[in-house]
Amino acid sequence: IAKEVAKLLEMKAQLGADEGKHKFVLKTPKGTRDFGPKEMAIRERAFKAIISCFKRHGAEVIDTPVFELKETLTGKYGEDSKLIYDLKDQGGELLSLRYDLTVPFARYLAMNKITNIKRYHIAKVYRRDNPAMTRGRYREFYQCDFDIAGQFDPMIPDAECLKIVHEILSDLQLGDFVIKVNDRRILDGMFAVCGVPDSKFRTICSSVDKLDKVPWEEVRNEMVGEKGLSPEAADRIGEYVQLHGGLDLIEQLLQDPKLSQNKLAKEGLGDMKLLFEYLTLFGITGKISFDLSLARGLDYYTGVIFEAVLLQQDNEHVEEPVSVGSVAGGGRYDGLVGMFDPKGRKVPCVGVSIGIERIFSILEQRLEASEEKIRTTETQVLVASAQKKLLEERLKLISELWDAGIKAEILYKKNPKLLNQLQYCEETGIPLVAIVGEQELKDGVVKLRIVATREEVSIRRENLVEEIRIRTSQC
Amino acid sequence: IAKEVAKLLEMKAQLGADEGKHKFVLKTPKGTRDFGPKEMAIRERAFKAIISCFKRHGAEVIDTPVFELKETLTGKYGEDSKLIYDLKDQGGELLSLRYDLTVPFARYLAMNKITNIKRYHIAKVYRRDNPAMTRGRYREFYQCDFDIAGQFDPMIPDAECLKIVHEILSDLQLGDFVIKVNDRRILDGMFAVCGVPDSKFRTICSSVDKLDKVPWEEVRNEMVGEKGLSPEAADRIGEYVQLHGGLDLIEQLLQDPKLSQNKLAKEGLGDMKLLFEYLTLFGITGKISFDLSLARGLDYYTGVIFEAVLLQQDNEHVEEPVSVGSVAGGGRYDGLVGMFDPKGRKVPCVGVSIGIERIFSILEQRLEASEEKIRTTETQVLVASAQKKLLEERLKLISELWDAGIKAEILYKKNPKLLNQLQYCEETGIPLVAIVGEQELKDGVVKLRIVATREEVSIRRENLVEEIRIRTSQC
Repeated sequence: IAKEVAKLLEMKAQLGADEGKHKFVLKTPKGTRDFGPKEMAIRERAFKAIISCFKRHGAEVIDTPVFELKETLTGKYGEDSKLIYDLKDQGGELLSLRYDLTVPFARYLAMNKITNIKRYHIAKVYRRDNPAMTRGRYREFYQCDFDIAGQFDPMIPDAECLKIVHEILSDLQLGDFVIKVNDRRILDGMFAVCGVPDSKFRTICSSVDKLDKVPWEEVRNEMVGEKGLSPEAADRIGEYVQLHGGLDLIEQLLQDPKLSQNKLAKEGLGDMKLLFEYLTLFGITGKISFDLSLARGLDYYTGVIFEAVLLQQDNEHVEEPVSVGSVAGGGRYDGLVGMFDPKGRKVPCVGVSIGIERIFSILEQRLEASEEKIRTTETQVLVASAQKKLLEERLKLISELWDAGIKAEILYKKNPKLLNQLQYCEETGIPLVAIVGEQELKDGVVKLRIVATREEVSIRRENLVEEIRIRTSQC
Repeated sequence: IAKEVAKLLEMKAQLGADEGKHKFVLKTPKGTRDFGPKEMAIRERAFKAIISCFKRHGAEVIDTPVFELKETLTGKYGEDSKLIYDLKDQGGELLSLRYDLTVPFARYLAMNKITNIKRYHIAKVYRRDNPAMTRGRYREFYQCDFDIAGQFDPMIPDAECLKIVHEILSDLQLGDFVIKVNDRRILDGMFAVCGVPDSKFRTICSSVDKLDKVPWEEVRNEMVGEKGLSPEAADRIGEYVQLHGGLDLIEQLLQDPKLSQNKLAKEGLGDMKLLFEYLTLFGITGKISFDLSLARGLDYYTGVIFEAVLLQQDNEHVEEPVSVGSVAGGGRYDGLVGMFDPKGRKVPCVGVSIGIERIFSILEQRLEASEEKIRTTETQVLVASAQKKLLEERLKLISELWDAGIKAEILYKKNPKLLNQLQYCEETGIPLVAIVGEQELKDGVVKLRIVATREEVSIRRENLVEEIRIRTSQC
């Protein structure tokens, strides 16, 4: 019987597949979404805040292709490499969609022999991850990256990256946040003094990276059970990774009898102290936490690492609160460019990536909850008529307005009703209506109606452009 | 011997392939390119002109994913379908990179049951075409699309699309241009009266589409030789396709004894007349040519079609002039949305696509030839010091400036030389330097240096932000 059932199930599956072939599926690919005009208005608002911050810090902007040679991405992402989208081999080069903007940036630097640049790059990246779209986790998503490349005095660019995260998260008013900071050298030093063998540094680091999602007990089990670490070493790590604080903690660890003996850890702690001094000058240490549990997944970090996390807030207006999580991250990667340079020449880099999708989710949910009506166009005036047979006059007038730089629309009807024209303004938020009629044409005027107040004024045609400019300059 | 040679050649090829495997290739994929800061500055300038035109015409903005389900793109592009990039089947859905923005737009309308929208969309599209990068032909390139969807009175939205092309090309100052206009119904009517069998309409249309690149004789040979059209039919087509003009030509064809008997052609010519009336009201007929040789390659057009072409100019400054060609195109596609709707409900659409890469090429070449130095940052002031040990004071001051919204930079050095700091300003075009020194700190002032004039003024620290704003507001 079991065999028969299996056979029938198989037949059913085959039928299902055939049916699926003929039925037309009307959707976007898994883990992706369209941005309609409303979502775009929110997205552009967020981008504006981010770009103006990047420009405030003197960044140039670059763009790279959406795909790279497959080999360019190979060996850069550790365990996450399996999430890379490959293109089909249609003859020619083997290509993959970019997984982040950092590796293409490093490739760009090496290829153009650039040793000194401060740039931002805002673009979509691609990961075949398990999407969780309500929480802003997509397979196609934006990253907003700011990076400083070049040989400089220690921790000055690193401090600026943290200042940038602080400015952007404050500006977007996403609520309270904390920026966790650590250093790969401190982590590696810590692993060494805890008795982790060198060969296990990266994999134990991956385990530590999970601490923001799962409790220590589980992470410990993974270290000991799966990764073969001794229970004693794991317990020593366990003591360190619960530490977080500020300058005081740095001082304490600099006195730590074991850590202070480790060269890497000492270097990292010294730089961390310098970083905190600079952050004090920037006045932002209140939101910075030196956190020994912060590890970051990617392989290429070599120094300071950081991650900004939104803190849960009581919010009565939103039924299902957006789950809090990381909205920005980054760090120092001094070896990545050298991996691309034929002679291995290194270009030290530090950078930050703003995870904008999660921020969109929050802004969208907030707008949903609020009463605010968001405009999706910038139209200043609708060119309308009350009588029939005035399409030509409407077209002549709107052409004049366009040529003068006024944002104007008409309804694409020969004889639209005035009521429909006024309704269109109400719906789309157009503040003014320029009404042409037989009498107005004779008198050389246009009737200008202010939608909000229903007031109507007669304006001489030659003054219309100026009048519209004045009346919409406050909008 | 031949056999031996073949064997050796094969061995050599294998060795070559292996060598290739080990040698690291540092490049972007074929047909793609990076945009460095200078190229981005040009790109953003062009986008700004285009976006402000789209907004002037009341368009909303949308965005769609870079890839679509493969089946979404199937059967929309005729012969060009072979140029679509497919993604590798890594389990899950079969995906392709978008080939244009029109099909994703139609999919978006059908999926969201939108019957009425005016939107623009600026994004990259992908074609596995033979790249000719110096002439602006890439495998990854931007399209800037503006479309009007909805059931409206005839030719009003169509006329607006042509007005938009006219505005953008005039605004970008690309030199003289002409916008060729035709109508698929006129073409089909013409084919019918010339004796082309119905089944050959699309393929003969493809041949006509090549007339902008190859002479009539070649096109005629393709029609008769490859596509099996009778020589008489081809010759009749040959007479029509050399016609181009304005309202006069439309009137003439409306009197044409054969064409005027064809229902489709008559409809098309009637609408073409209406279009020209509207374009006359817009004052742009001087650059419009009704051209019976214009065919446009894509399958989905159903009515008006158009294409803007730059006209060759004598240009002594550029050694190798950019080859002239199409920089914008579009038309009416009333059936495309219905192909996606489960019930086949149609949404009439008309739209225009600006081919921005060719425009970039021209702008880049022009900038190259000119003396203009393009700034790639917007930094207003460099925070500098003349003496050593003032890093902390520089960091404090720049932090104040950033928080006040001033665009400011410092050199990432503990003790940079004043000369280097001034040189950095010269190189990057920063107009002001705020210099902190021991004496200034005591006096509560900052020395503000105007880079262009080398003038230096003492500004009280509390007035510095305002002073920088005033002095850079004219820049």
